[in-house]
Amino acid sequence: MKLAIIYYSETGQTKELAEVIAEGMRKVGSEVRLFSVDEPLDEAYLSACDGVVFGTPTHMATCAWRMNQWLIEERASIPLAGKLGGCFATAHYAQGGSDSAILSILGMLLVKGMLVYSGGSAHGQPFIHHGPVALDAVGNHYEDAKEMFAIFGQRFAEKAIELFEK
Amino acid sequence: MKLAIIYYSETGQTKELAEVIAEGMRKVGSEVRLFSVDEPLDEAYLSACDGVVFGTPTHMATCAWRMNQWLIEERASIPLAGKLGGCFATAHYAQGGSDSAILSILGMLLVKGMLVYSGGSAHGQPFIHHGPVALDAVGNHYEDAKEMFAIFGQRFAEKAIELFEK
Amino acid sequence: MKLAIIYYSETGQTKELAEVIAEGMRKVGSEVRLFSVDEPLDEAYLSACDGVVFGTPTHMATCAWRMNQWLIEERASIPLAGKLGGCFATAHYAQGGSDSAILSILGMLLVKGMLVYSGGSAHGQPFIHHGPVALDAVGNHYEDAKEMFAIFGQRFAEKAIELFEK
Amino acid sequence: MKLAIIYYSETGQTKELAEVIAEGMRKVGSEVRLFSVDEPLDEAYLSACDGVVFGTPTHMATCAWRMNQWLIEERASIPLAGKLGGCFATAHYAQGGSDSAILSILGMLLVKGMLVYSGGSAHGQPFIHHGPVALDAVGNHYEDAKEMFAIFGQRFAEKAIELFEK
Repeated sequence: MKLAIIYYSETGQTKELAEVIAEGMRKVGSEVRLFSVDEPLDEAYLSACDGVVFGTPTHMATCAWRMNQWLIEERASIPLAGKLGGCFATAHYAQGGSDSAILSILGMLLVKGMLVYSGGSAHGQPFIHHGPVALDAVGNHYEDAKEMFAIFGQRFAEKAIELFEK
Repeated sequence: MKLAIIYYSETGQTKELAEVIAEGMRKVGSEVRLFSVDEPLDEAYLSACDGVVFGTPTHMATCAWRMNQWLIEERASIPLAGKLGGCFATAHYAQGGSDSAILSILGMLLVKGMLVYSGGSAHGQPFIHHGPVALDAVGNHYEDAKEMFAIFGQRFAEKAIELFEK
Repeated sequence: MKLAIIYYSETGQTKELAEVIAEGMRKVGSEVRLFSVDEPLDEAYLSACDGVVFGTPTHMATCAWRMNQWLIEERASIPLAGKLGGCFATAHYAQGGSDSAILSILGMLLVKGMLVYSGGSAHGQPFIHHGPVALDAVGNHYEDAKEMFAIFGQRFAEKAIELFEK
Repeated sequence: MKLAIIYYSETGQTKELAEVIAEGMRKVGSEVRLFSVDEPLDEAYLSACDGVVFGTPTHMATCAWRMNQWLIEERASIPLAGKLGGCFATAHYAQGGSDSAILSILGMLLVKGMLVYSGGSAHGQPFIHHGPVALDAVGNHYEDAKEMFAIFGQRFAEKAIELFEK
């Protein structure tokens, strides 16, 4: 089971949380590789993946424009159809629009023909409605949220295994 | 392979298009049943389904409130987690917000833990970005769109078969 | 300057925050009345208002269905066109979709012909991207957020005064 | 009364419709200038504007990434706060996500502190829920929609006059 996480990170936070998700994925035996949108992409690896998670900071209550550019133009031809797709976001504030950032990416993943998945409320706590979010300007939320990110990674990998390793 | 379509229909159009999707699903051998949100639900059948498509008219550029009520409260306990989920909408005008109606439902399906799927652009024409749309006040679009709705039904059923009948 | 806040509240939290916003509005001399969607509405007062803020809990990462029902059907005829419109939401978790709840209402307010306004980042801190959010399961966020809600109320009222009392 | 339309256009369609909106705006005496995001911007003119409309093609069911880049980064400092803001989109198909393209921009305009406005259903036909849309692969919709675009321009300008020239 191969999985990938594709992210854009300026401060290192989105990258760090991508790594936390990857740890959760590895717990259930998945191979995971992380790719920044600003680094070279191993297209053969990505093609062989059964699931891809995208990570973005929240900018003006939507995703980083580099994520749009990457998905729409720069890497428009990468084969994502049929794979499991998910998304997470970092933001400063609860009212910062992180959920809109996630949905803006999930909408593009649907157009790619992915199976869009968050786990939602189906696995009990923590509920992860559209995707995990970490807020760095709300108390200790950024650090506290890491456990949820790891659980998201594990759930996502388990779903990919259930769907594609039968 | 059991599938279901759950819809709200006032004028009969959303129901008619649900039937067109069902025809497409049956072409590939699926069993399909349709349920209006205003009629009794066969919960045992729905539980046994591998995929569920939701259909709504577009009201004020979002889905009918009965769909929200049904998903959030009236049928909050129905087991949708892990199933393939999709959505279609009817609307009058191109600028009427049918896509927002579809996304408002897909967002709730994610919270249910469904695998949200439209096929997108992955199968070539017709591209069905977030879900099929029929407009009854734009030339002959409502009638012309029926072919797309049948194709959506077929693609949706084929994906469910691929995922769950391996 | 007359303003109104229309809310749905089950636990009393959304109502309490509506009152906090109202306090902020009154600071700059506005008359404010609050209406639960479950109580009688003074339509004459609402018609005379220059701005209306809507408040909702977050249910399944969108607004309470009673808000949809109220705006789309029950009170479809109330005159909101041309008034300033805003929205706030309560939620449990950062990843709970409060921003999607707010946008689902703002989208309907646009269809009503309102001038949709949050203040955004234009007034400096606190940035309130699409509308204020209070999380009751993230540390002390619910209590801490009250100051932001009062500021939102004040900014909203100041904008209404600027627009309509010239 | 100064107004501006800022657009991204590859094929010339989005530019053409920007010009149609501008004609509608000029009917009621507004001065209007159009700026492509790929051309130099007259910042002094834009600062003096009371309203700005943004136009985008629909790419993967959202706006062109250049619009995100322009609003979030390239022109993050342009003063849009307090101005009337609107959006229109071009797309190929009814199910192509033009409404999501419009909302993705309107969400950013809220963060800028704009008064977001579409007219909605408040002026009778044509209803323009979140913003005007022209579809070039649905019968004659693209040409037929021009009348609606001109009406949108006129309504938008009239609202700006009503708000800012009192």
